[in-house]
Amino acid sequence: MRVELVSVGTELLLGDIVNTNAQYLSKELASLGIEVFNQSTVGDNPKRLLECFDEALKRSDMVITTGGLGPTKDDLTKEMAAEYFGQEMVLHEESWKYIEERCRRFSPGKPVPPNNKKQAYFPKEATVIKNNNGTAPGAIFEKDGKRIIVMPGPPREMKAMFEESIRPYLMQFTDSMLVSRVMRLYGIGESALEIAIEDILDSQTNPTVALYAKEAEVTIRITAKAKNEEEAKVMLDEKSAEIREIVGKYVYAEGDSSIMDGESALEYSVAELLVKRGKTIAAAESCTGGLVAAQLINYPGISEVFVEGCVTYTNEAKVRRLGVSQDTLDKYGAVSEQTAREMAEGIRREAGSDIGVATTGIAGPGGGTDEKPVGLVYTAVCVDGETFVRENHFSGDRRKVRNRATRQVLSDLRMILEGIEI
Amino acid sequence: MRVELVSVGTELLLGDIVNTNAQYLSKELASLGIEVFNQSTVGDNPKRLLECFDEALKRSDMVITTGGLGPTKDDLTKEMAAEYFGQEMVLHEESWKYIEERCRRFSPGKPVPPNNKKQAYFPKEATVIKNNNGTAPGAIFEKDGKRIIVMPGPPREMKAMFEESIRPYLMQFTDSMLVSRVMRLYGIGESALEIAIEDILDSQTNPTVALYAKEAEVTIRITAKAKNEEEAKVMLDEKSAEIREIVGKYVYAEGDSSIMDGESALEYSVAELLVKRGKTIAAAESCTGGLVAAQLINYPGISEVFVEGCVTYTNEAKVRRLGVSQDTLDKYGAVSEQTAREMAEGIRREAGSDIGVATTGIAGPGGGTDEKPVGLVYTAVCVDGETFVRENHFSGDRRKVRNRATRQVLSDLRMILEGIEI
Repeated sequence: MRVELVSVGTELLLGDIVNTNAQYLSKELASLGIEVFNQSTVGDNPKRLLECFDEALKRSDMVITTGGLGPTKDDLTKEMAAEYFGQEMVLHEESWKYIEERCRRFSPGKPVPPNNKKQAYFPKEATVIKNNNGTAPGAIFEKDGKRIIVMPGPPREMKAMFEESIRPYLMQFTDSMLVSRVMRLYGIGESALEIAIEDILDSQTNPTVALYAKEAEVTIRITAKAKNEEEAKVMLDEKSAEIREIVGKYVYAEGDSSIMDGESALEYSVAELLVKRGKTIAAAESCTGGLVAAQLINYPGISEVFVEGCVTYTNEAKVRRLGVSQDTLDKYGAVSEQTAREMAEGIRREAGSDIGVATTGIAGPGGGTDEKPVGLVYTAVCVDGETFVRENHFSGDRRKVRNRATRQVLSDLRMILEGIEI
Repeated sequence: MRVELVSVGTELLLGDIVNTNAQYLSKELASLGIEVFNQSTVGDNPKRLLECFDEALKRSDMVITTGGLGPTKDDLTKEMAAEYFGQEMVLHEESWKYIEERCRRFSPGKPVPPNNKKQAYFPKEATVIKNNNGTAPGAIFEKDGKRIIVMPGPPREMKAMFEESIRPYLMQFTDSMLVSRVMRLYGIGESALEIAIEDILDSQTNPTVALYAKEAEVTIRITAKAKNEEEAKVMLDEKSAEIREIVGKYVYAEGDSSIMDGESALEYSVAELLVKRGKTIAAAESCTGGLVAAQLINYPGISEVFVEGCVTYTNEAKVRRLGVSQDTLDKYGAVSEQTAREMAEGIRREAGSDIGVATTGIAGPGGGTDEKPVGLVYTAVCVDGETFVRENHFSGDRRKVRNRATRQVLSDLRMILEGIEI
């Protein structure tokens, strides 16, 4: 089964938006064991659309399109699919009723825009697919074993339709499936990881093992080809255990590929751990300026354990809010191991929490000196009275330094809570 | 001049990465007035690459590729370009010397990997383009008025090469340029804006005016087609003034298209305003949990005016840190106009700052009641003793509610500082 993706829209050709639909669909199809052979992007142009369908269906069995199903005259995707297969468009009553209802619900009291009626036209040979999140239905066109599936362009509508209707439809075309497992690691670089698990990487066949590096993090993706989910799960569990035996201490999250790009995995694991252990926490932040608190508070259940955060950006606030001693600030400066320690211990004391975390550093672009350059950040974690302070030297711009510092202090906290030697 | 983009790489077909190169190049070419006619993505496959060049150059004058210039046997883009034009690959001494130097510099003491030599082969008819950020040079292939430009896949290398060499090369093919101006608005919805500037939208020719909506924000993009930057600037200034006359109060930033996708525009305008006016600020946050502070602190010069932030997630912390009265909490609850007001006034008093801002609300998914549903957030801004409190009802998940609340309080602060009636 060979599939090609066609993304329709002038906004893509102008570079106004990134084509995340193509990535989403490619990934989903790969997980079904369906090969994507080609991705194209064309404008809302009838001739080009027809040519594109023609070229694609010469090479492949199926085209999946996104975009061009809107109510305006510019939107031509399904019209061209119908023309390509020589099918006539007629009003699909059920869709029109649904569109009318939807318009009335979202704009009560207003007349239903007449151009929306265009969205309810389909060939009677096509299978119309309901769109639960918008007015543009999708459809499956078919003739002589060739198929065109049209889906709306807005990612939210497209993804929901794929999940609800298209994926189940595609299941008939595949007899093996690819299932991926993702492990996220913090605290080990890509090259070091590559060397550590060299034997596993070299001997991989099925499951395959791949590494992806991203700003101070590495992700391992294990992909098993199997007949069903259960078989895949056994294979993935086995390979994951092999990897964990070598670098398990750095793994802070493991799950399906939805955690691949999520920014939230590290903060979620830490927050989950805090809630599970019933450990209360407070944060004192200088250079991260609220990011540590904001990230922890991403976790919905955090209110059980998060007591308070202080963004003590000035020295005066460090003294007043955290009880950092003026002596320490005078002697060692605000960016020092000593200040970080007193901040973490101070916020824990003030908040009456089990844990205090703190950051202080120079995020740049200004403020660096030879002795204390931009990127120098002290992070501190105080758990039940014992304090661990780390001196970090981060590279990158202000945003990067602040993000790195936030992740580092969360990672250290995770390791301490898990009883892992830092 | 018709150009097509070809992105080469199996990782794109598998959906492992998003194709940001296509967006970047489309946008850059549009700004040169060069039309991108089609974007395709193919795997590292010789037959498919050749077919792809063939199809594209039947329709268009030039193909620009990214990816497939690596040192391994899989990397075939330039080999296929040479084959397509019937040109023979020979060692390009200068490139090989550069690659050798580069390898030695980055891996001192190690032998230069022999497979890197492949990266130095080009037809003698081709113009080789130096890569200042990697080992893979680019090249311009040409025959009978048809051209293939090959560039490396890693965005950092590709973008630098485009800026340094390809854009200047392409300038010969264009006699007019498109220059865009972006205005970012907060506080008005897309439909309301569309109605407000209907006449401008309906009568647009050159410059064109387009709207883009994104989570509680609208962006207006004005694009002028002109002979040079100066001429474009006059046209853009004029159109911008027309728009500002109608909806100027909502415009918080205006600039080139680099501010189109930036998340930082609102916080930057507010921070800039604070620094310019020398107004000190402190933030008291409940549901936003540090986001307001973290966003303000994104701005590099913020230390001059940001005094402190308090993430007072518990009632106890609101009383202890901000002096919110226990009576208010008992009588109205933590999520109330009264509490928001006392938080903003309290943090201002405690920090001794000119301005206090505060948020308190129910971010969800739990914690909502009929009376106080998920999404209810009170935001407060206290400037020099006068306090403005807003009751907001945000939809969306936890992350969205928190982001909306953060932006709302920053937007209100901006309007108050600018003396705009809210």
